Amino acid sequence: MPVVGMVGGGQLARMTAQAAIGLGVTFRVLAASEAESAALVTHDVAIGSHLSLPDVAAFAAGCDVVTFDHEHVPGAILTALESSGALVRPGSAALRFTQDKLAMRDQLTALGVPCPRYAPVSSVADVVKFADGSWPVVLKAISGGYDGKGVWVCSSPAEAAEVIGHRIELLAEEFVPFRRELAALVALSPSGQGAAYPVVQTVQVDGICREVIAPAPGLDTELAELAQARALRIAASLGVVGLLAVELFETSRGLLVNELAMRPHNSGHWTIEGARTSQFEQHLRAVLDLPLGSCSPVAPRGAVTVMANLLGGTDPDIYDRYIHVMADDPAVKVHFYGKDSRPGRKIGHVTVVGSEGDEVAAVRDRARRAASYLRWGTENGD
Amino acid sequence: MPVVGMVGGGQLARMTAQAAIGLGVTFRVLAASEAESAALVTHDVAIGSHLSLPDVAAFAAGCDVVTFDHEHVPGAILTALESSGALVRPGSAALRFTQDKLAMRDQLTALGVPCPRYAPVSSVADVVKFADGSWPVVLKAISGGYDGKGVWVCSSPAEAAEVIGHRIELLAEEFVPFRRELAALVALSPSGQGAAYPVVQTVQVDGICREVIAPAPGLDTELAELAQARALRIAASLGVVGLLAVELFETSRGLLVNELAMRPHNSGHWTIEGARTSQFEQHLRAVLDLPLGSCSPVAPRGAVTVMANLLGGTDPDIYDRYIHVMADDPAVKVHFYGKDSRPGRKIGHVTVVGSEGDEVAAVRDRARRAASYLRWGTENGD
Repeated sequence: MPVVGMVGGGQLARMTAQAAIGLGVTFRVLAASEAESAALVTHDVAIGSHLSLPDVAAFAAGCDVVTFDHEHVPGAILTALESSGALVRPGSAALRFTQDKLAMRDQLTALGVPCPRYAPVSSVADVVKFADGSWPVVLKAISGGYDGKGVWVCSSPAEAAEVIGHRIELLAEEFVPFRRELAALVALSPSGQGAAYPVVQTVQVDGICREVIAPAPGLDTELAELAQARALRIAASLGVVGLLAVELFETSRGLLVNELAMRPHNSGHWTIEGARTSQFEQHLRAVLDLPLGSCSPVAPRGAVTVMANLLGGTDPDIYDRYIHVMADDPAVKVHFYGKDSRPGRKIGHVTVVGSEGDEVAAVRDRARRAASYLRWGTENGD
Repeated sequence: MPVVGMVGGGQLARMTAQAAIGLGVTFRVLAASEAESAALVTHDVAIGSHLSLPDVAAFAAGCDVVTFDHEHVPGAILTALESSGALVRPGSAALRFTQDKLAMRDQLTALGVPCPRYAPVSSVADVVKFADGSWPVVLKAISGGYDGKGVWVCSSPAEAAEVIGHRIELLAEEFVPFRRELAALVALSPSGQGAAYPVVQTVQVDGICREVIAPAPGLDTELAELAQARALRIAASLGVVGLLAVELFETSRGLLVNELAMRPHNSGHWTIEGARTSQFEQHLRAVLDLPLGSCSPVAPRGAVTVMANLLGGTDPDIYDRYIHVMADDPAVKVHFYGKDSRPGRKIGHVTVVGSEGDEVAAVRDRARRAASYLRWGTENGD
């Protein structure tokens, strides 16, 4: 059995570990500490830093293929691994576009993929010029971020000045008045096989994904197919191996690409119960160059699967509230990431798969009620 | 989060580990070696013998509740654990009926549950008398077995003499001319909540379960409900906490109980993809006294889910054949147990969830083809 190593010990690695058990492939994790989400449940854990070439190289030496739970491994480490002969999937050439948002925008534009209007900025004057009187303007860190944040919606030159003051490389983007946000999740294997999940709707609150509805209710079939085809084309053009999540704005002028991720993605957690093949198994199959699995939804035609993220509150005892959630809805699935609860932190998610005849609103209510119950006592749900 | 300890490191513990990851409960396994199926994938593994009180007691000391992957922990160890205050679920009083088949038969008979005709036997003369001219007769080890076997179908006094010669305690049972075999899987929690999965058909070849069809095709609704009700009544009467699998013969004189198991069971593997709550999650919920999950099937009404066991052949390289299985049927789910392949050994299973309009035979064919592919090259499938 091949050994798959995942750099990063977060919840994506944790859920990939579950998928690896079924396939019987050996799964290793490089985690920053024994307390990380995936380190708590994975049999084969290496402790080290994804910023250290010796740590990552030592880890990779024990793996047949190396993949990632996040996009924070420096490009120099990725290319060093590749030079040493390690199989890195996705590779450095593809991952670069998740680490450099300006390069990503330029590349997508060259491919003819519609994006929000953008420009690199390095001064308040640049931002004011970009805004051309139309505020707010979105500022994004081209790489990394500042204090855990990478996106700022600025309503005025004064707000832009504060972000500019962090002295990080920035990109300005138009603030897109979208109807809603969508995500297209696809997989591509080294052999060139592609697979596309149904396009989903993502509901964000304060920049955090709160809910995913799969498939996106009422989405025009042609638009859905366009989104899937575009995501597959982006994946092929960028040389992605594994999953590619394309976050999209649905606007009056069509679909615009917001962000890319080349790994299992929050917008695909619904696939664990809601699709024939979970995104985690799909990612493993892709990086191992196994034939890809069916992306078909489990819910019958017309019904949806809803995933709601579980955000931490001030009361850390999630388990104590399992009894309420499970008694209230015996079909809700709880996924807890083993993380300490902190206000606003994603500490788990819940999924409800709709049955025939279930209204979208009813399935959403069930998922939201479960997520709300689980963080009850801290803030008043919503 | 509570700590659940499972004694035994086989595939049932392995699949329970997967379910524990989602719930976020801490899962520990007591395995005989690092190479056992569950030990390969569980983060928290203790190595020791289930036959050693010190080993089991040390293991239990680190757990909030102790449960089992098999029924081979001696009763004296179970009662010693209970005396020391450990939470043992199911408890020794219930497990006794899986370890002593004569006690099980007597108890079920006292409850009015129809069973095959049976009698303890200790000599060939006893067997001949029991047979009363009607052969074959089934001989079963009352406890344990001999050389890995516990059931012998004897066609003559000479064959019975050979089994008697092993000098183990034996039970004679009539050879039941059944239409087919069924299994009723239920869960019971300490709070008294019960849950029943759809009754399934099991297909055995040479005494080994090869296929499970869920729900059992064409089973009369009243008979299915009777089987579920009877299984729940047995569970309650025997004081079961957790899962109870009741293996049944469907005969011209109704349903007869063949065997009982108080743990996740091969007849319930289909629930991982095929039911809202997998049997492994259900067992955890029951032993933790959490509200039980929905047992509803995922396949639409009229469609079935089929599980086929994967038996090892002489060629150990299962992985090499993944590419064929996955390319042939992108929706088949492979579960590999991480066991070395030996002819006839259960080394994994595959599951296919049917969609609307799928014929039972077509879903069975897909599952069987996948299982057959995976052991191809060793014997000629079937």
